[in-house]
Amino acid sequence: MERAITPEDYVGLAPRLPFALPDRVRINEVGPRDGFQLEKSVIPATKKIEIVDALSKTGVPGVQVTSFVRPAAVPQLQDADEVMGKITRREGVEYAVLIPNVKGAQRALEHDADVWETMLSVSDSHSRANANRDTAEVLASMKDVVAIAQEAGVEVVGGMATALGCPFEGRIGYDRVSSVVSTYQDMGVRRVTAADTAGVADPAHVYDMSSRLRADFPGITFALHLHDTRGLGLANVIAGLAAGIVDFDSSVGGLGGCPYAPGATGNISTEDLVHMLALLGVETGVDLPSLMAISRDQVAQVVDHPLESSLSRADPSWVLHPSPAAQQLQGE
Amino acid sequence: MERAITPEDYVGLAPRLPFALPDRVRINEVGPRDGFQLEKSVIPATKKIEIVDALSKTGVPGVQVTSFVRPAAVPQLQDADEVMGKITRREGVEYAVLIPNVKGAQRALEHDADVWETMLSVSDSHSRANANRDTAEVLASMKDVVAIAQEAGVEVVGGMATALGCPFEGRIGYDRVSSVVSTYQDMGVRRVTAADTAGVADPAHVYDMSSRLRADFPGITFALHLHDTRGLGLANVIAGLAAGIVDFDSSVGGLGGCPYAPGATGNISTEDLVHMLALLGVETGVDLPSLMAISRDQVAQVVDHPLESSLSRADPSWVLHPSPAAQQLQGE
Repeated sequence: MERAITPEDYVGLAPRLPFALPDRVRINEVGPRDGFQLEKSVIPATKKIEIVDALSKTGVPGVQVTSFVRPAAVPQLQDADEVMGKITRREGVEYAVLIPNVKGAQRALEHDADVWETMLSVSDSHSRANANRDTAEVLASMKDVVAIAQEAGVEVVGGMATALGCPFEGRIGYDRVSSVVSTYQDMGVRRVTAADTAGVADPAHVYDMSSRLRADFPGITFALHLHDTRGLGLANVIAGLAAGIVDFDSSVGGLGGCPYAPGATGNISTEDLVHMLALLGVETGVDLPSLMAISRDQVAQVVDHPLESSLSRADPSWVLHPSPAAQQLQGE
Repeated sequence: MERAITPEDYVGLAPRLPFALPDRVRINEVGPRDGFQLEKSVIPATKKIEIVDALSKTGVPGVQVTSFVRPAAVPQLQDADEVMGKITRREGVEYAVLIPNVKGAQRALEHDADVWETMLSVSDSHSRANANRDTAEVLASMKDVVAIAQEAGVEVVGGMATALGCPFEGRIGYDRVSSVVSTYQDMGVRRVTAADTAGVADPAHVYDMSSRLRADFPGITFALHLHDTRGLGLANVIAGLAAGIVDFDSSVGGLGGCPYAPGATGNISTEDLVHMLALLGVETGVDLPSLMAISRDQVAQVVDHPLESSLSRADPSWVLHPSPAAQQLQGE
């Protein structure tokens, strides 16, 4: 039998790092879109709806539900209308959908999402591979998406894939990233997410990019979308926190991946992130046991591979085990 | 075909974090002892010797070769004499063996290891479970081990299992850890390793413990022995670096584990650590491609499960892929 103490008991002393930690971090759960999107087996819409509804009850403040991408491009998400139409919207949870283009925006209008997350790649080569157009062309087309959102009163989060590294070009210069932010800002976008799409970023680069963006764009709230492909996911979160970032995307079970590292882990996992932040004394509002149950039971059931999150295999640090001596005494 | 650039090309700008990074980190490769010890299938001595010899050629400055533990206690390492006797000692590499007690010390005397690493648990419950005695008793018995080493001119590294957390007791107070260091110091030990044996530590705790130990014991060189059980391994390295630690244990392939988290990852992997440090511009002296080849080819072959290191599945961040457009052009 395990003995659990609370994270607060466990943490004990005030955490200490050579930089200030925030009181609170806001997590955007992207598993239902970014995670499911890469799954090979088709996940029934009913299961997706159950999982989104369960996630909504964990206390997580944001859920990225689905994508209004062309169904032929991402068959796994062709049920976007059904899923968005049938989830139970919960007060206090921000429901986001991914909008790749104007057509997607028009489809999304019916569904009253709280947030539209736009999608573009900061590097031209990745943009061409993904969207068949250069970054500048995709960015220009986002102007119409943002205008539709503004007219509908929907908030836009500007996505920046490959902002923290491109699998084809390597590291992307700050000027290129900041010029995309600048264009988003000119459109009236006030929240921007920088993504480590290929899982190549390291803590120094994350700190450098994040702190420069925050300094140059005080009117923008930046989020980080990090992957754990090379084991650096949570180290990169630490670097983001050090730079003052308090918004992070993560995926239940660590779902999601990278086509250039087959078998490697994908997005940082929400349970591992919540667990680390609890150990650091940073509030997320997420109930970790509920989240772990969703991951281990519901999510593990709909995918055809083991989950990649550490907490799908190990218990939280504050769960104590009986010592063998105590076990022996109990047996006597 | 992949296009590789050097880590130096990739890193480009000088890394920036809100604390100074060291120029160099010293890695102690513990896979052959700490990693192999927990493997269920018996690894032939010849394979162990080949792997130690291959690791010695990567540029890693230290290798923990085996343990002079009672053969019945750890059957996997009952070939300690054979392995230590038959490896090819390489100039510049420090060969270490684990010494649990005086009997082990006497056996080790024949083998002229550069370093004896002692082993004790800072928490009584873990000490009783592991060594059937309290911490104080084991520590007292180490006095004789250290005396034998000193007479033989062998350097001692004082081990402190559970210093960064105990699976039975949770977090261990600083005073208890520092009193063990103090006793080691009184014996004449000048290098001490603090271990996160159960993989429960977090960056704030690692920073706090490491910086206090360094401040209170300026005459001692501290190393960290970290696990990745909860995905925090490399984040904890960052915290250690921030506290001025420049000595780390790690294990090729991420071998090793924790009996209280079955299936979970074990020691931080040497290849993931070398890779992160290269991205941060910190020298290790280790040739990453050679190390990755040992991990993926030689080590993967002698264990009966997939390796846990990220770089056993993903390439280094600086390995670029051809963009699909370029691939198409090549095909035309």
